[in-house]
Formats: sequence, C-alpha cells, structure tokens
Amino acid sequence: MADFVKTQYVTFKEELYLESGRLISPVTIAYETYGKLNAAKDNAILICHALTGSAHAAWLHKAGDKPGWWDSMIGSGKAFDTDKFFVICSNILGSCYGTTGPTSIDPFTGKHYGRKFPVVTVKDMIKTQKRLIDYLGIDLLYSAAGGSLGGMQVLEWAITYPEKIRSAVVISASGRITPMAIAFNAIARHAITKDPNYKGGDYYGSAPPKDGLAIGRMAGHITYLSDAAFNRKFGRRYATFEGIYDFNGFFEVENYLLHNGYKFTERFDANTYLYLLKAMDIFDLAYQYNSLEEAVSRIKAKILFITFSSDFLFPEYQTEELVSLMNKTGSPPEWARIESDYGHDAFLVEFDEQTKAIKKFLDGVNH
Amino acid sequence: MADFVKTQYVTFKEELYLESGRLISPVTIAYETYGKLNAAKDNAILICHALTGSAHAAWLHKAGDKPGWWDSMIGSGKAFDTDKFFVICSNILGSCYGTTGPTSIDPFTGKHYGRKFPVVTVKDMIKTQKRLIDYLGIDLLYSAAGGSLGGMQVLEWAITYPEKIRSAVVISASGRITPMAIAFNAIARHAITKDPNYKGGDYYGSAPPKDGLAIGRMAGHITYLSDAAFNRKFGRRYATFEGIYDFNGFFEVENYLLHNGYKFTERFDANTYLYLLKAMDIFDLAYQYNSLEEAVSRIKAKILFITFSSDFLFPEYQTEELVSLMNKTGSPPEWARIESDYGHDAFLVEFDEQTKAIKKFLDGVNH
Repeated sequence: MADFVKTQYVTFKEELYLESGRLISPVTIAYETYGKLNAAKDNAILICHALTGSAHAAWLHKAGDKPGWWDSMIGSGKAFDTDKFFVICSNILGSCYGTTGPTSIDPFTGKHYGRKFPVVTVKDMIKTQKRLIDYLGIDLLYSAAGGSLGGMQVLEWAITYPEKIRSAVVISASGRITPMAIAFNAIARHAITKDPNYKGGDYYGSAPPKDGLAIGRMAGHITYLSDAAFNRKFGRRYATFEGIYDFNGFFEVENYLLHNGYKFTERFDANTYLYLLKAMDIFDLAYQYNSLEEAVSRIKAKILFITFSSDFLFPEYQTEELVSLMNKTGSPPEWARIESDYGHDAFLVEFDEQTKAIKKFLDGVNH
Repeated sequence: MADFVKTQYVTFKEELYLESGRLISPVTIAYETYGKLNAAKDNAILICHALTGSAHAAWLHKAGDKPGWWDSMIGSGKAFDTDKFFVICSNILGSCYGTTGPTSIDPFTGKHYGRKFPVVTVKDMIKTQKRLIDYLGIDLLYSAAGGSLGGMQVLEWAITYPEKIRSAVVISASGRITPMAIAFNAIARHAITKDPNYKGGDYYGSAPPKDGLAIGRMAGHITYLSDAAFNRKFGRRYATFEGIYDFNGFFEVENYLLHNGYKFTERFDANTYLYLLKAMDIFDLAYQYNSLEEAVSRIKAKILFITFSSDFLFPEYQTEELVSLMNKTGSPPEWARIESDYGHDAFLVEFDEQTKAIKKFLDGVNH
C-alpha cells in the first residue's frame, strides 16, 4: 500500500540574518515529514536535498503521482526507516519549490524578487532548516543526511551546530567544490544570462530563458554521469532518421541531453538555478575558520561518508582529505566507498549499497 | 635566429568527392612547409592540426609575431627536425584559415557557403591533404603526426592510404570519440545555434553569434584540461573585486573560461566550429569496414601512439583497444604513455617527453 504525504508550509516573520549581512523576511519554509516524532523528540532525521530537489523526498502526494526523489531510501524498512524515525525534508532557502527564493514576492515591491534576492549560502540554508527544527520542537537531531549540495548542508550542520546533531550522512559531497565543478557552473551561468529572454533576470511575466537554462542543465548532466555511464547508456548510437552526414542529425547522447535540458525548464526557474549554483560555488567549509582542520575539529556528530568511485564532480580525494583531518582531530568518521560507474548520480541510483551502509551506521549511533 | 615561413595556397579545380556523396569545387588548400624536400622526395612529414588549428604550425610570419602552434616541436634539432625532414602542415578542409570551408565563397551564389557547405569528414580532410601531397610530387610520406583531431587524421591516413605512409605519430587521439566527448560538443552546438545572432547560420555581414561561440568554447576548455590542471592553475582563487556574496563576483577559473571563450570568437567562425565538431563526432575508424579490427588490419605504417595520463577527452582505454587489435593483426605499434596532469592539452605543453619519444621513433622508421 502506498504511503501519502502533503507538503506543509510555515512562515517566519522574524528577519533571517544572512551570511552576507543582508536580511530577509518573511521566510516561508516548505517541508514534508514521514513517520512519527516520538515523545522524547529524539528520533528526527533531517534529509537535505540536492541542487534542484524539493521537500518532496518520498511517498506520494496523490495516487498515480511520481513518488518523491528519494522514495527508495525513505519509508518503512528502508534506509531511513519511518517505523523508527521521524524523517523531515525541507526545500532549501533560495529554491523555487515553496521555500522563499527569487521567485517569491518581495514584500517591498509586490513583485518577484528576481535578481533583487540576496545571495544565499549553504550556511543560510541550514540556518533556515534550524528554524524549522526549532519550530517542530526538536532540540537534537538523530541524524542529517543528503547527497551533493545536500551533503554539503549536512557537513555545515555538523560544524555550525555541533551540539544539535548526533550523526550525519554525507553522500557524494565535500567541503568545497573543485575549480572544475565551478567551470561547469560557469557554462550554465553564461548560457542563462546571455539568453535574450533572461533580460537581466527580469523575465517574470514574459517568456523565460529556456534555451539558456536548458544548455546550462545539459552541462550539469555531463557532471552527473561518468565516462562509463555515457558508454553504457548511449554508446555511439545515432538518434535520428537524418543520416550521419546530415548537419542536423545527432547521437542518442545529444538527444538525452536536449530532452532532459528542456524538460528541466518546465519545472525550474532560471534565476533560482543561478542563485543555487552560486551557493554551491562559494561554499567552503573552512570559510570563517582559520583552516579546514579547525572547521572539522568542531564536529561532535558521528559521520558517515559515502562516495562512489566514478563521481568526478566530487572526486574521492576530497573525502580522503576530510577523513584524514577528522582522524587527526579525534572524531574519526566512517567511510563507505561504493564501486559504481553511475558517476555523481549514483546516490540517486545505487540504493542497495547505500541502504546497507546507512542502516548499519544509524543503528550504531545509539551505541 | 628566428626562422620565417609564409602560408602558401593551391587551388584545385577538379571536384572533390566527399564521403557523403556531395561534391565540392574548387578546393583551395592553405599550407606551410618547413625544411627542404630532398631529391628522392622521401623525407616529407605531414603535420595534421587539431580542431581550431591552422597551417601555421611553426616559425614566424614576420618578426614580433607569435610563432606557429607547434613551434616547440618543429625546427632545427626539434622533434620534427627540419635539418632532416621536409615538414608540411595544411589547414583542414572545412576550416576558416585559408582552406575551403563554410566561410569561403560558394561559386554558385557568390556568397559565403555558410550552412550550404556540405558536411565534411576526417576522411575528406585527408583526401584533401593527399591532393596537396601529390601536387608537391611526394609519393610516400616518411610520417604523419598530429594531436587530437590531428591524430584522428593520422590514423585515417594509415588506414585509407596504407601504401603512402611509412609511419604515423598518433597523439591524444583515438579511432572515435566517446559519447561523453560528443556531449561536450552538443553543449557548443546548442549554445551557438540558439544564439539569436546565429540566424540559422546566415550571419555573415552582421554581428556573429559571439556569446554562443564563447559558451561553446568554454565547454571545450573544460575538456582540454584535467581536474588536477584546474586545481593547479586556478584553485578556488576569487577573481574580482566584487565580494564573495556579490551575485556577479566570480572565481579565477571562470575568468579564464570567459577570457578564452571570447578571445576565441575574435579568431574563429561559428559555422566552421559546428562543421568541425560534426566531423569529430561522426569520425569512426571502423566506419565502412566490418570491424575496427578489419580497419586497423589495413595499416602498414609503423605507428607510435602517445597518450597523457590525465586526458579524459581521449581516455587511455581507447588506445589500449587499438594497440591490442594491432598486436593481433600483426602490426604491433609503439606506445609512449606520458604521465602528465595537463589533460588533453598536454600535447601542446609537454614537449620534452614527446620530443624524446618522437625522435627515437622517427629514427627507427628507417631500420
């Protein structure tokens, strides 16, 4: 029998002080919960979503729907077992799925914020999540977990609120992205801002910059896969009825990128994409500390890192660095290195291995 | 004392039959030569350039100029030693540096070919080079050499004209590009064709699609480097006087991509870029043979492969495949695997190791 869930909303009127010094209010947070908060309120797990995810992490909104983005991981008997845990997922600050972001209405102008929205950071995102956790009456999280930008939020939780989190599952993530990852984001940035429909970000009410956003997303898709995944999924199969020598003919891989690039524009906002890429680019766990070592020395939570061998967006040497620093600072983490050729996307695909590692880890938190 | 060279031009009125079945005439070839053809005419080496290269491979056009693109490799005492060899480099068919291509005037319309230019292939490129070699009175090449798309041409030479080439140096190349490489080219394709200045390719005489071409080239630059090269060259250094929290601030890596992306638009034509990407995408050494093994079994030339460990655009497993097939078909090649973190660009940077391997190989051709 399918499980059903509704997205809930809570609005905070108090100003949120952003890392940049800017203030924002009101702040609405969209969130979903799965399972039951126990009487002691000590069984809550916060799930942090990736770049373009939403609060809808699992289950169905209504019959016939597509389930949430991590449905294979959250539910009765699953990695995040809703028979035991109260699982929360909230849409991140700056996103376009219900939490305040560039598509929200600026109370000062009555119009969409657009580019007037302040730059937000991963720390701002988790400060927003902390408001939600407080609102739900939870003083201490049993765990937080997430992949990619979600994993970055989880790391930031462990460092910013060391007393508020007992454990953390950091998947396909690191303390800062590589310059090569920034380079991919730069492609998206310029494809979007150079699209004539972008109009300096003031395109609400007119045709949005679909071409630019689609091209940006195509660049993203390259980073989500791996050389091996490209070979397996597409090989060099030709996609069209046009011949090889036709200028407009193309390969299946190109068809895939185009299809997913434009499909993305139906569900996501271009300004939002730019703000979230920016948050990803400037995230640095060591920022405002003297060193990465000082930053990770703050961690009190038990940490499980999960990495996938073919993830070139977050290369394993980054986790290596964090693990060796944490071994030094006295809070040795666990590390599940999973062999997979799915690339960065593996955290959305390789459920069996992740489930095994996470279940064992979460069981151990109590011991 | 600097060496000087002039670009020469030869025009063939005879129709060139393209692999697609289309015909083209006249065909002009731009080329340069370095060193002297000996009396026996058996000391000629053909250099094949990469995607956006030109016939100007070495030396200076005039004092104060930037030398040709492989100047460190071609000259007296260098890898391609002009004291011994007569070195030829010609601009490829479909390019915009003097050889007939989309920017040439279509004799039927009196206007630039633009998108009326036929799709050309690597085989068409080497057929054009063969005309030049015949015109120069050379019956048998001592060698052909090139990196990237240049290396693909060299492989095609060895298979299409096995009797006309004694040796071949194939650098950072393979018998076909990976689907991931096609994916990067797809980004460029759509960035260019969606630029409103592109106008379906009919932009000559008006503003060219600079933004699209720049974005496409930015995607290319990612593939020319490696994760390690990105780390070494840029790290996460911030580039602007804007703050971290400024929406328009960016990192040095982005500055590099933008600078090189737009610089490229000053020297290269967008349609040409699309035609050459297309040639790269559809190149398949096995095409029109029953198998890759049958294709390479045609090779009579001695082959030297050179690869660089961090080249992810042409991964080493592709060379592995060619080498093991050639070992089977009875023409075992040499293979110099060079450790380098420069990525695909290494063939334009790592001169010492390449020179050592190439000198030794070329000496051995006579034995």
